[in-house]
Amino acid sequence: MEETHQPFNGKIGIIGTGALGGYYGARLSQAGFNVHFLMRSDYDVVRKRGLQIQSIDGDFVIHPPVHNSAQSMGVCDLLIIALKTTDNGALPGLLAFTTDDKSVVLTLQNGLGNEDALARILAGRSIEETDPTAQSLPTAPRVMGGPAFLCSTRVAPGVIHHTEYGFIRLAEFAGSPTERTHAVAAMFESAGVPCEVLERLDEARWGKLIWNVPFNGLGVAASPGADSAVILADPVLSRAARQLMDEVISAAKADGVELNQSAAEQSMARTRTMGAYKSSMQVDYELGRPVEVEAILGEPVRRARRAGIAVPAMELLYGMVRRADQMARDK
Amino acid sequence: MEETHQPFNGKIGIIGTGALGGYYGARLSQAGFNVHFLMRSDYDVVRKRGLQIQSIDGDFVIHPPVHNSAQSMGVCDLLIIALKTTDNGALPGLLAFTTDDKSVVLTLQNGLGNEDALARILAGRSIEETDPTAQSLPTAPRVMGGPAFLCSTRVAPGVIHHTEYGFIRLAEFAGSPTERTHAVAAMFESAGVPCEVLERLDEARWGKLIWNVPFNGLGVAASPGADSAVILADPVLSRAARQLMDEVISAAKADGVELNQSAAEQSMARTRTMGAYKSSMQVDYELGRPVEVEAILGEPVRRARRAGIAVPAMELLYGMVRRADQMARDK
Repeated sequence: MEETHQPFNGKIGIIGTGALGGYYGARLSQAGFNVHFLMRSDYDVVRKRGLQIQSIDGDFVIHPPVHNSAQSMGVCDLLIIALKTTDNGALPGLLAFTTDDKSVVLTLQNGLGNEDALARILAGRSIEETDPTAQSLPTAPRVMGGPAFLCSTRVAPGVIHHTEYGFIRLAEFAGSPTERTHAVAAMFESAGVPCEVLERLDEARWGKLIWNVPFNGLGVAASPGADSAVILADPVLSRAARQLMDEVISAAKADGVELNQSAAEQSMARTRTMGAYKSSMQVDYELGRPVEVEAILGEPVRRARRAGIAVPAMELLYGMVRRADQMARDK
Repeated sequence: MEETHQPFNGKIGIIGTGALGGYYGARLSQAGFNVHFLMRSDYDVVRKRGLQIQSIDGDFVIHPPVHNSAQSMGVCDLLIIALKTTDNGALPGLLAFTTDDKSVVLTLQNGLGNEDALARILAGRSIEETDPTAQSLPTAPRVMGGPAFLCSTRVAPGVIHHTEYGFIRLAEFAGSPTERTHAVAAMFESAGVPCEVLERLDEARWGKLIWNVPFNGLGVAASPGADSAVILADPVLSRAARQLMDEVISAAKADGVELNQSAAEQSMARTRTMGAYKSSMQVDYELGRPVEVEAILGEPVRRARRAGIAVPAMELLYGMVRRADQMARDK
């Protein structure tokens, strides 16, 4: 698709080698790119046995350079962020050792606000700052976003099971695609990862939330067992999910993004074909892990508030998931 | 307040002798009215030891006629319905033995739709029928509604603890107040139960939902422990509660009831003075009892749907409480 562009080349660092970062990093490594992995709990296992990918497209093992500290990994030309957004608090410390003035940072994370946070960190500003002028930070052009579409699970230390999808949409955080955007896309494509270059990042981010807000949110708030099939089979929850999608579309519009009005109906229709699918938030919640409530619900709600529009169902869902997550943490 | 009217007199039957029906019935009985109580689990205890009221206004015991079947109670002139709305399915059987063509039926129950159900039962029609023409049923004029404001708890068989309030607002289901409305109000007043006659029942019913929808709903959906203080202390849930109130006001308007726009802010302000108050739904849910989800959430949502207006947060809350209740039942 991007054959006319030279693939990006340089030292690549994967921050967050879970089901997401592990899969995409392994593909790049397998294709011969110079990929370094930052690992915590899986470090010893991967050093000994390599990183194993059990994929619908064929299994493989790689033996890449792995690191158990950001210092050891050192400065990278391209840093791929695949941490859970609930761990974003660790980013300033990690980026201090792995980026210099020229490093490019691409986040494959879920939800809204991650690129803003990265731009603030690179500019040496507080990550929590709710500064809508983040896009004008001098470092914003070094940040890219890549909404990832992947079904994968870390089934054991150093073992990732890839069950479906596996593509990326790629855009610059500040401005239109450049030669660099196409080079990074070509890099993914040459590693067997379909990668579409987008004109606008926020369109893709908001577009993904049409599904993520209702089905991730209800996966926690209507727990236990509220997978996509359970929600669709419940006439009230299914209607509520559909109305949440309308609110996402309204909030996106207030944030400057015109999504197609038919996207909600299409998303409901597609969900009907998915069977009993557990959202990532539901999986995390059921396993007692922190859920990505701020990236998927909190930030969209805050943007709607800032734009002065009411999103009462999103607000309610955000409040309930936030409380459920807090209660689980307090246990 | 209604001194110029002769109190209603005749045989009074209390259907549902819990914290609500037990308290008001005991007041009437204590004042000398001819009150019969239908009881299930408390029948033996009350027959032996009477019905005990431990009240902020002074304790008392009554030894009224009690019945363990509707047949035994027989036809009443005024039937006061204080069943939990989750038991409304029992009403057709109960009313068959306790009403004749002249009996008046007053419901003190929570939420919307109970008067409609009673009118349909008296007309020999199905209780589930969602027939918006219920008001034109020939029996509708025999139905009255009385939103009750009472804090009381059944603390043991035959023992009711009355901690606060204790008044009733009274209105005809069909039409304006009549001589009979005032007579029933005078009856309550003469028994020490403040009773205000209202021009319109639906105004009072919807008005009560301004508080009941958010705080009863969240008491279950944001469980455990989501009392009024917890909700108010949570900035997101508190905002969601306020927005739910706005949706109730919109739904009421679409249902033909103009509530004061300031009622939501007033209700929030009053709640701030209440301390950590547990809604009846929260109490029921925590004790593993069915919750009054249809009367408090389901019927308001259905009326909004019928009127063609979107109430996305109410719809979501309804869906979650309904599912939580079903899951608790299935255990």
